[in-house]
Amino acid sequence: MKRAYFDHAAGTPVDSRVLGAMLPYFREQFGNPQSIYGEGGVAKAALDLSRRQVARLLNAEPEEIIFTASGSESNNLALKGIAAARSDKGRHIVISAIEHVSVQSTARTLGRHGFQVTEVPVDDKGVVDPAAVKAAIRKDTIVVSVMAANNEVGTIQPLAEIAGVCREAETLFHTDAVAACGVIPLDVRVLNTDCLTLAAQTFGGPKGAAALFVRKGLRLPSQIEGGNQEHNWRAGSENMPAIVGLGKAAELAQAEMASRAAALTVLRDRLIRELPVRVERSYLTGHPNQRLPGHASFCMEFIEGEAMLLFLDDAGISVASGSACTSKSLKASHALLAMGLPHSLAQGSLMLTLSPENTDDDVTRLLEAMPGIVRRLRQMSPLYAQFQKDPAGYAERLSKEKECHV
Amino acid sequence: MKRAYFDHAAGTPVDSRVLGAMLPYFREQFGNPQSIYGEGGVAKAALDLSRRQVARLLNAEPEEIIFTASGSESNNLALKGIAAARSDKGRHIVISAIEHVSVQSTARTLGRHGFQVTEVPVDDKGVVDPAAVKAAIRKDTIVVSVMAANNEVGTIQPLAEIAGVCREAETLFHTDAVAACGVIPLDVRVLNTDCLTLAAQTFGGPKGAAALFVRKGLRLPSQIEGGNQEHNWRAGSENMPAIVGLGKAAELAQAEMASRAAALTVLRDRLIRELPVRVERSYLTGHPNQRLPGHASFCMEFIEGEAMLLFLDDAGISVASGSACTSKSLKASHALLAMGLPHSLAQGSLMLTLSPENTDDDVTRLLEAMPGIVRRLRQMSPLYAQFQKDPAGYAERLSKEKECHV
Repeated sequence: MKRAYFDHAAGTPVDSRVLGAMLPYFREQFGNPQSIYGEGGVAKAALDLSRRQVARLLNAEPEEIIFTASGSESNNLALKGIAAARSDKGRHIVISAIEHVSVQSTARTLGRHGFQVTEVPVDDKGVVDPAAVKAAIRKDTIVVSVMAANNEVGTIQPLAEIAGVCREAETLFHTDAVAACGVIPLDVRVLNTDCLTLAAQTFGGPKGAAALFVRKGLRLPSQIEGGNQEHNWRAGSENMPAIVGLGKAAELAQAEMASRAAALTVLRDRLIRELPVRVERSYLTGHPNQRLPGHASFCMEFIEGEAMLLFLDDAGISVASGSACTSKSLKASHALLAMGLPHSLAQGSLMLTLSPENTDDDVTRLLEAMPGIVRRLRQMSPLYAQFQKDPAGYAERLSKEKECHV
Repeated sequence: MKRAYFDHAAGTPVDSRVLGAMLPYFREQFGNPQSIYGEGGVAKAALDLSRRQVARLLNAEPEEIIFTASGSESNNLALKGIAAARSDKGRHIVISAIEHVSVQSTARTLGRHGFQVTEVPVDDKGVVDPAAVKAAIRKDTIVVSVMAANNEVGTIQPLAEIAGVCREAETLFHTDAVAACGVIPLDVRVLNTDCLTLAAQTFGGPKGAAALFVRKGLRLPSQIEGGNQEHNWRAGSENMPAIVGLGKAAELAQAEMASRAAALTVLRDRLIRELPVRVERSYLTGHPNQRLPGHASFCMEFIEGEAMLLFLDDAGISVASGSACTSKSLKASHALLAMGLPHSLAQGSLMLTLSPENTDDDVTRLLEAMPGIVRRLRQMSPLYAQFQKDPAGYAERLSKEKECHV
């Protein structure tokens, strides 16, 4: 029986039309776009087309798109690049408390090299308050980085308002839009962003294909130095199949965004509606509707996420608990803790990310499997035993734990 | 008529067996190796196999292999990583005068950030003298970086001797082996290298797939920060198709290295033998036999490389002039100038890089096309007119120009 797969944020099939566009670039069109003879010209034309396709998705200019190999690389390039380019203007950086680990780690490294970093908190739905960003900005703030949508709870940020605050304060604004770009409309002119990170995997493109939008006029020193590829911003022979795949995926995402979102929202909302009914003491995390169309996330009380994940795996169902990048570590997600969830609840995180290939049958399978699995896991939980013996005492302990973390 | 393509260093078809191994990882095996459920396990097994395959090619341990997205990225990681890790021990770096631009630029950037860089010269065949490396090493030298084989003239360096000098002086040794790895045998234990850069494209693998060997016990800070992929050395979701392709290409390169080299050497040596006979005043660049099996490079006097390249393109033949990364700039190659070639000769650079897909017919076509093209170009050259009028005066000017550059 085909597995029901709900971890498209971690890995997802490349759209077959995208793969079709990529295939000729492995063996037939193998030229280097830097070469001036025939094969090079073919590659150069494909490179230019991909850049236009990605630019169009964002309402950007083609020359504002820099191809990279991952969202993490783009985030590193944006933050380290701005830090290097603007360190004479100031050494203060603002990020949100729920940024992807590639933004968080990069900011913290800069924090050990002469920069100061302020983490703006989020509310219990994972929303960054533009007023809090405004309060965090100082005279020496050179960049604010707030993600467009959170990968773990799906919450979409009030990006235009946050960007507006930055523009007013004359500080640069970068957004990690890996989870959002290609899924919800993002217009860099309307949003007023200076840098934006995107990755092809989010919208049916291949792994190893990502980009950084950098607003015209802004100049960042390259982080990978060498040849003059990508307008001297990022050295290394162009990975043509990946770039062609990113371009094609961007074109398709733009054309089909509304219909994909509509279909995903139906499945997502069924999960959000029915899971808490089927499983008692399970809670939606993130915002109830200001969230990515294919994203449903929960916390199951008295459950250890990894055990739940393995039981579901046995039932032929793939889900995530915490973010893909930290799935191997047992510690609870920093995003969930930042939203004020107590540690014991955050450990029972269930993250479901859907793609257009998911069906209503997949959702049914998950909904039917969950109650039994949760029951078995809770029977093994000492915490659940305590709760059943003394619900009032348990509630008191929990509220104390919450106070420690909020 | 099929084109005769001689620029495999810039771009080359992926081996069809390699592409076959990669294909399932785009749509069927799309899991993330960090995930612990079924699809993740399949990806993890493939990741581990690729790491073993690459390690075996170098006689390294699998945990000494870090996957990256390009040779340039690996070179940046090695040099910036060592600079950051060892800056308390010293701030002096030694590179050769003919390093790839990704090593040269990175070293020069470090040179602007508190490090000192010494460039060791090469002889007229592009060979780095181990004694010169020894002389360049100081008490505060933290790393020596000399490429295994040069991409522009194909010269293979006396790597074991250079590494021995470094080991004796207790300084780290990195080699950019992009042009050599997978083509000639490289054993990191015999060579005693601390870091080694390789890229899949050189041996039938895909673009966007490369690695850095880092000797066990050595620890470099990551340059792309974020998730805990690649033992925390290089963040970003693993590009599984690329990594699988690199592994498969490494396995095939190891098995077929000797037979490929034998076939390439026949074609290469025919070019080296016959081209200078067919075209007067054309000279082999690099070493006559201590060179890559598929690499033949020349300088044609009174010729502007780009014009020659375009005339050959019209004849259905693709060649390079200078390195792929700088092919758009008109300035002569820094490697050729470092070898003491006068500027006017270096501008007429012809670089032929063969692959197992090249045939003897390809070579015949090139050899037959060259004399006519060279004749037409020389008829347009004011320098050639001068030479014909006054050969002795021209020779005198040339020797003066040479003195300026050597």
